[in-house]
Amino acid sequence: MSVRAGIVVTGTEVLTGRIADQNGPWLSEQLLELGVDVAHITICGDRPADLTAQLRFLADQQMDLIVTSGGLGPTADDLTVATVAEFCGRDLQLDPALEDHIAGIIRRWRPDTVDLDDGPTRIGIRKQAHVPAGATAIPPTGTAPGVAVPATPDEPLPTILILPGPPVELQAMWPTAIASPAIAEVLSRADDLTQETIRAYGLHEAELAETLRRAEDSIPGFDALEITTCLRRGELDMVTRFAADGAEIYRQLLTFLTEHHGRQIFSTDGSTIEDQLIATLDGRLIATAESCTGGLIAARLTDRPGSSAYVTGGVVSYSNEAKSDLIDVPAELIASHGAVSEEVAAAMAEGALSRLKSDVAVSTTGIAGPSGGTEAKPVGTVCFGVAVKGRPTYTVTRRFPGDRERVRSLTTTAALHLVVAQLERDPAAG
Amino acid sequence: MSVRAGIVVTGTEVLTGRIADQNGPWLSEQLLELGVDVAHITICGDRPADLTAQLRFLADQQMDLIVTSGGLGPTADDLTVATVAEFCGRDLQLDPALEDHIAGIIRRWRPDTVDLDDGPTRIGIRKQAHVPAGATAIPPTGTAPGVAVPATPDEPLPTILILPGPPVELQAMWPTAIASPAIAEVLSRADDLTQETIRAYGLHEAELAETLRRAEDSIPGFDALEITTCLRRGELDMVTRFAADGAEIYRQLLTFLTEHHGRQIFSTDGSTIEDQLIATLDGRLIATAESCTGGLIAARLTDRPGSSAYVTGGVVSYSNEAKSDLIDVPAELIASHGAVSEEVAAAMAEGALSRLKSDVAVSTTGIAGPSGGTEAKPVGTVCFGVAVKGRPTYTVTRRFPGDRERVRSLTTTAALHLVVAQLERDPAAG
Repeated sequence: MSVRAGIVVTGTEVLTGRIADQNGPWLSEQLLELGVDVAHITICGDRPADLTAQLRFLADQQMDLIVTSGGLGPTADDLTVATVAEFCGRDLQLDPALEDHIAGIIRRWRPDTVDLDDGPTRIGIRKQAHVPAGATAIPPTGTAPGVAVPATPDEPLPTILILPGPPVELQAMWPTAIASPAIAEVLSRADDLTQETIRAYGLHEAELAETLRRAEDSIPGFDALEITTCLRRGELDMVTRFAADGAEIYRQLLTFLTEHHGRQIFSTDGSTIEDQLIATLDGRLIATAESCTGGLIAARLTDRPGSSAYVTGGVVSYSNEAKSDLIDVPAELIASHGAVSEEVAAAMAEGALSRLKSDVAVSTTGIAGPSGGTEAKPVGTVCFGVAVKGRPTYTVTRRFPGDRERVRSLTTTAALHLVVAQLERDPAAG
Repeated sequence: MSVRAGIVVTGTEVLTGRIADQNGPWLSEQLLELGVDVAHITICGDRPADLTAQLRFLADQQMDLIVTSGGLGPTADDLTVATVAEFCGRDLQLDPALEDHIAGIIRRWRPDTVDLDDGPTRIGIRKQAHVPAGATAIPPTGTAPGVAVPATPDEPLPTILILPGPPVELQAMWPTAIASPAIAEVLSRADDLTQETIRAYGLHEAELAETLRRAEDSIPGFDALEITTCLRRGELDMVTRFAADGAEIYRQLLTFLTEHHGRQIFSTDGSTIEDQLIATLDGRLIATAESCTGGLIAARLTDRPGSSAYVTGGVVSYSNEAKSDLIDVPAELIASHGAVSEEVAAAMAEGALSRLKSDVAVSTTGIAGPSGGTEAKPVGTVCFGVAVKGRPTYTVTRRFPGDRERVRSLTTTAALHLVVAQLERDPAAG
């Protein structure tokens, strides 16, 4: 690929593992979509010497673009702009219009700030309004402006884009940042690539790897495709990137994969299982009755804006009494079959369907672990029920590997797939 | 600090942002606890040249230890061991006992593997059983062994610890890995540090920064403390590390902080709000009634093993009908005050208390956004109710910033804090 980029994430809280970095992955995805080849992500703390070392490393590796996140705050330990300026041999210059702009933001947000005109707040604002010579400030989306530093050909040093650390601010600034002349110039040299995503469920990574090896042998020009696979919450995603001359090769690969794994591949257009669930609901209402997932299915169903249009609600029936009292699971059923049984799962789904006045309901009851397993029902055993109005209730038992968190996560994904599969079935088949 | 380390995370799926790296943060935390100073985390894809460049960078930065994760699989694109061997100028040597060991694992896991003795599976096993000369294999916790490569003093090159990519395997291997002689030798040179955590709720990062500046002025020897602060799900964590001579200075800082922010600091012993909730429940049972959080509170309450001992269950009453039918919120109350009101929040909590036969219940009803806000109740407005058996129900309204995900996350944290605050109140105060 024509344009190579490195991403530098700064922040002691990220380096020390206390918070998970969101910016590296997000920036990487954005750059890839723009046809840029991301070669390195590096993370350092708030020590200028370590940041300088990483900038030097990426410049030596001949990156065309470096994107940094973090270290743009008003306090003395926010040193990214000063460190980049020194690295590039550029003086820091005060931008008075930018200073006014930041002061105006703080005046609106915290009108009672006493030291806005004088004192620590003003010193912080003035610090944030300093920009390396020849660089362009990018208007703040919080209080910190970004900076686009053009390439320094004499050194030679690459173009550097400096962005704030809070993911919300960084993401809001991105469209303006990539439109700024120095950044737009680099991006204009990037390849024009297409990216396609195939999603599979119930397919092992090793099986897909074996199929891809065979595809490589049988499809001429296979190397034109850049393929990444990854497992996420029990689903296997395969992302393929290619230039215009790879489109026909990708079409052949898609046919090849569909022939081999047609049953497992549930999406070839980038849609997620949530998208498909909403589509197959087609205006119907859904409810949940959860035991081992403890609310995770409801939380996932309601994480989209507007989900109240199709989610009526859910019950987390952790105790047996809750199962009986709230969603009418007969106590005798629990006594005779055990709480983790398809009979109880069916009753839970049917109870949620009727009590929550929905058209579809899904239930889970299982053993998330680490304790509670038996020989007959080991940790990871989960019974599901899917009730659809006017149809017999479907039930199934699955066994998931891993620790409590993984079992709960895999169960949540499985529940969504089971609902879609039931809704897609021919209704006449009953 | 005496021992500096760099972490190299390999994997195209991580570099491209398709899955979030868990290994860098986890390894960083482990190393910090062992008194090691982590200076750099770097992420690269499955290209040996990029991995070599990162190893070279970390060696040039005079790291004493490099820990890598990923690239240990049986397939041809898993190249970490071969790349490290070449980087260190060490030949790869077959370890026949290790080969037998890996074959034995696969025989147990997938007894129907047809090409175990011959073919791709055996080729893969043999590849995984190659270890650089002078290095020590660390027994697999999945199928991939780790490798401890001692320092190469002539170059000079640091000690390198090679670990597998799947977080479950990596974490399971860690105790054995750090006990292997080459790694133990490096770690024996690390400082003996203490790490203390203070957690605050309702305290702004800027306020804490200002207090720390004043503490620095008034506490002699303040520099002996290494302080990191970070915001996580609405809480502000402050982690301090110090050697033996910093213990008294830390005690002074703790007193200073408690004087200034005693009301906001809820934990000085590392305990989380979940720990405190379980302690204050003290055997009582809790239930939830959630609207805007859609199950997140229940999911968080049940993510611990054994949570069925204190969680009876929850209701996600997304629709108004669900509020009335499942937890007895009078329809007239919703009609007269609106679903987002303290009156409805109180009725939800009381309904959950009685219907879910619990001693304590917490409710949320609010506008997570992005739509649904009004002038009187803008997006981010959330009403809470906390019902405790035998007491009047407590209600409060809060307004949270940010997008839907952030509002839901901050609401979940706030709910846990409200419950603890109510349970800690003097019961006689009513």
